[in-house]
Amino acid sequence: MASSITWPAGFKAAGISCGLKNSGKSDLGLIYCEKGATAAAMFTTNRIESAAVTISRQHIKNRKIRAITANSGNANTCTGKRGIADALGMCAKTAEKLGIKKEEVIVASTGIIGHMLPIDKIKAGIDQAANQLSETQNAGHNFAKAILTTDTKCKEADAKITLGSKEVRIAGTAKGAGMIGPNMATTLCFLTTDAAISKRLLVKAFNAAISNSLNKVTVDIHQSTNDTAAILASGEAGNRPITAQGRSYDKFSQALRDVCDDLAKQMALDAEGATRMFKVEIKGAKNTAEAAKAARAIADYPLVKCAINGGDANWGRIICAAGSCGVDLNANKLSCKLGKITVFRNGKPVKFDKDKAEKIVSGEYHTITVDLGIAKASDFCYGCDLSKEYVTINADYHT
Amino acid sequence: MASSITWPAGFKAAGISCGLKNSGKSDLGLIYCEKGATAAAMFTTNRIESAAVTISRQHIKNRKIRAITANSGNANTCTGKRGIADALGMCAKTAEKLGIKKEEVIVASTGIIGHMLPIDKIKAGIDQAANQLSETQNAGHNFAKAILTTDTKCKEADAKITLGSKEVRIAGTAKGAGMIGPNMATTLCFLTTDAAISKRLLVKAFNAAISNSLNKVTVDIHQSTNDTAAILASGEAGNRPITAQGRSYDKFSQALRDVCDDLAKQMALDAEGATRMFKVEIKGAKNTAEAAKAARAIADYPLVKCAINGGDANWGRIICAAGSCGVDLNANKLSCKLGKITVFRNGKPVKFDKDKAEKIVSGEYHTITVDLGIAKASDFCYGCDLSKEYVTINADYHT
Repeated sequence: MASSITWPAGFKAAGISCGLKNSGKSDLGLIYCEKGATAAAMFTTNRIESAAVTISRQHIKNRKIRAITANSGNANTCTGKRGIADALGMCAKTAEKLGIKKEEVIVASTGIIGHMLPIDKIKAGIDQAANQLSETQNAGHNFAKAILTTDTKCKEADAKITLGSKEVRIAGTAKGAGMIGPNMATTLCFLTTDAAISKRLLVKAFNAAISNSLNKVTVDIHQSTNDTAAILASGEAGNRPITAQGRSYDKFSQALRDVCDDLAKQMALDAEGATRMFKVEIKGAKNTAEAAKAARAIADYPLVKCAINGGDANWGRIICAAGSCGVDLNANKLSCKLGKITVFRNGKPVKFDKDKAEKIVSGEYHTITVDLGIAKASDFCYGCDLSKEYVTINADYHT
Repeated sequence: MASSITWPAGFKAAGISCGLKNSGKSDLGLIYCEKGATAAAMFTTNRIESAAVTISRQHIKNRKIRAITANSGNANTCTGKRGIADALGMCAKTAEKLGIKKEEVIVASTGIIGHMLPIDKIKAGIDQAANQLSETQNAGHNFAKAILTTDTKCKEADAKITLGSKEVRIAGTAKGAGMIGPNMATTLCFLTTDAAISKRLLVKAFNAAISNSLNKVTVDIHQSTNDTAAILASGEAGNRPITAQGRSYDKFSQALRDVCDDLAKQMALDAEGATRMFKVEIKGAKNTAEAAKAARAIADYPLVKCAINGGDANWGRIICAAGSCGVDLNANKLSCKLGKITVFRNGKPVKFDKDKAEKIVSGEYHTITVDLGIAKASDFCYGCDLSKEYVTINADYHT
C-alpha cells in the first residue's frame, strides 16, 4: 500500500462520516498544514461549476494555504447564492476551528448536482474531523476514504527524491470513477509534499504533472462540474528551496508526475464498471493537439470500449474512430498496433495471431498505438472499457 | 406498415441472401430504375471510407442512375486496392446483368471493417437478385431487410403530395443501429420518388432533408466509414418538372423531410440496445452551430443516456453536459425542461413533481429542452438511451 498524504512532513489529516451519505460511509475529509503551505491548484473548465470551485479559485491566490476541507455525497453545484454561502461557511467553520483565516482554506465537494448542502451536518463534521487530526498514516488513509463516491477503492501514490542531503516526499490521493472527461484536473485530487519550492515553480510543475496524467484520463467524456486538483508544499523537508529551474526542479517535477501518473492509472482501472484499462498512443500526427484529439476520440468511442470489454481485437473500430475525429491522417500510411502486434499497416489489414491479440486486449492494461502517417507529433490518453456494470451503476443511481 | 421503395412509379427492387451473413439472413439488395433516375447522395465525412463510398462518390456525378446495389455483412472498408476493385466489380456485375453502364450504378456496403468482400458470393447474389426484381410492395420490403445489420426491424417511411393534378410519391428505407454519429448522411438510407425534378433541386432538397433528420441522430458518437444516403427520382409521376424554387419545390421538400424525419426517429428507437429515444431542443444559443453542438453533447453523454435508461429525471447531468461542451451560456439564465416540466430555471433548481417527471423520462419518446440564455438561436438532436444490451451487443460481437 502506498503511503498516505500525511507521509510528507508537516501534514495532519482526518476523514469521518458526517451523515451526507445514506450508506453511512465516510464523507468529510480534512488536511491541515499548521505552518502554512505554498499551494497550487487546477479546476474544472466546465462553464457550470461547484460553489466550492468558485470559492477555491479565489482562495488559491492566497500566499499560504493551511487547510483543505472536502466532502463527498453532495456536489454543491447548481445551488445558486446559497451554495456560495455554504462553501464559504465550510471555509469559515474550518478556519474558526483551526484558528486560521478562512482565505487559507480550500474547499472541494463531490456528489449529486442540484441539492443544497446540509450545512449543519458538515459544520458538525468539521468539528469532529478537526478533533481527530493526526499525522499518522491511518489519518491520511481516512482522508482518502472520505472523498470517494462510486469508487470501489482508495487511490494513493507516493514518491521520494533526494535533494542535497535531504529526503523530499510527495504523496497524493484522488477520487474519480464516473463523470471523468477532458480539460484540466479531472476529478478530485489532493497532493502533499514537504519540498521547499516557490509558488511559481510549484504551479509550473503541478500544471505539467496534471496535464500529463489525470488530464489524460477519460472514462465517459463527462467533465465534472467539481474537478479540483490541489497540492500543498510544507517546505519542512529542509531542502534548499527550489526557486529556479534546474536539476532539483527537474527531479521534483518528474517525481510529482510519477505520483500523478500512478493516480491516473488507478482511476482508470477503478472507473465505474471498468474491468480493464488501456493507453492510446498516437504517433505521426501533424501536431500535439491533433495527437491528443485522436487519442481521446479512440479512448472515448463506445464501440472501442465495448470491444475491449469483450476482449475482442476489433481494430476496425479503432481506425473508424481515428478517421472520424477530424484530425489529419494519411489513409495509405495509417497503421495500428495492439500491444506489440501490428494489425493494420499502411492502410491495409495485416494477418496476425488472433489468440495472442485477444490475450493482449483482455489484459488488465494494454497499449493501442496508432500512427497517423502525417508528421512526427505524438500524445497519449488513458481509457477504460465500457461494461454492463457502468450502465447498472448509472441507470440505477437515482436523483 | 409504410409503403416500400417500389411504391413510387418506375422502381423495381429485390432483396436476397447470398451468404455474407453466417445467420443466413438477407444480405444483398437491389433497386432498379429502368428508365434512369435523377439522383442525389450524401456520404460519410470519415477520413477512412468504404471502397463503396469512394466509387459511389464518382458515379453519383453521372447524369442518370439506374441501379443501387447494397450489401450488409461486410463493410468493404480498410481493404485497400482489392476493396476498390471489388466495389467496381459489384457495379460491373450489376450493369452487365441489367444491360446498363457501370457508372449508372451506386454501391453501398455495411458490416464488419477490414475483411475482404467474398466477391464471388456477391456476384452470384446480384444474378439472383436481378432475376427477382419486381415492382411489388414485397420486393421493396425485401430490399429493406437486406440492408439490416444489428437492427431489430426494417425502417420504412412514405409520403405523397399532389402537384397539379398528379400524385407524387416518396418512399424510403434506412438501416442503422450502431456506429451512428455526426456529419452527413449517417447510416445507409435509400429513397425513391416518382417526382420529375432537376438534379440541382433534388440535391438541394435532399441535403436539407438529411441534414435535419438522419444527420441529427446520434447513438454512440461513432461516425461510420460507410454512411451513404441516396435518392432516385424517376420522373414518372408526370408532374410538371420542378426546375425552380417555388410552391411545388416547397411541397416536395417538406414531404421529403417528413419521410427522412420518420426514418430518423425509427433509427433512434431501434438503436442498439435502445429502449427509448429523446429529442434535445436547445434554445437561446449564440448561433445555430452552438445550439447543434450543445444538443449533440447532451444526447451523447453516457450519464444522460444511462439516466434515461433508468427512467431517472437527473437534470444535473444534462446541465453538466451543457456546461462542458464549450458553448457560450449564461449560468444565471440557464434553464431546463423535461417534457413540459421545468426542473431548472435561471440557474436554480425548481421544485417539481418527481413522479410526473420520471413518467415523462420513462416514455418511448420525450423532449429535453435547454435554454442557454445567451441569444435566440436554436437547433435539435435525436438520441437514445444507453442500456446493458448495447454493451452486450458490442462486447459479444467478435471480429
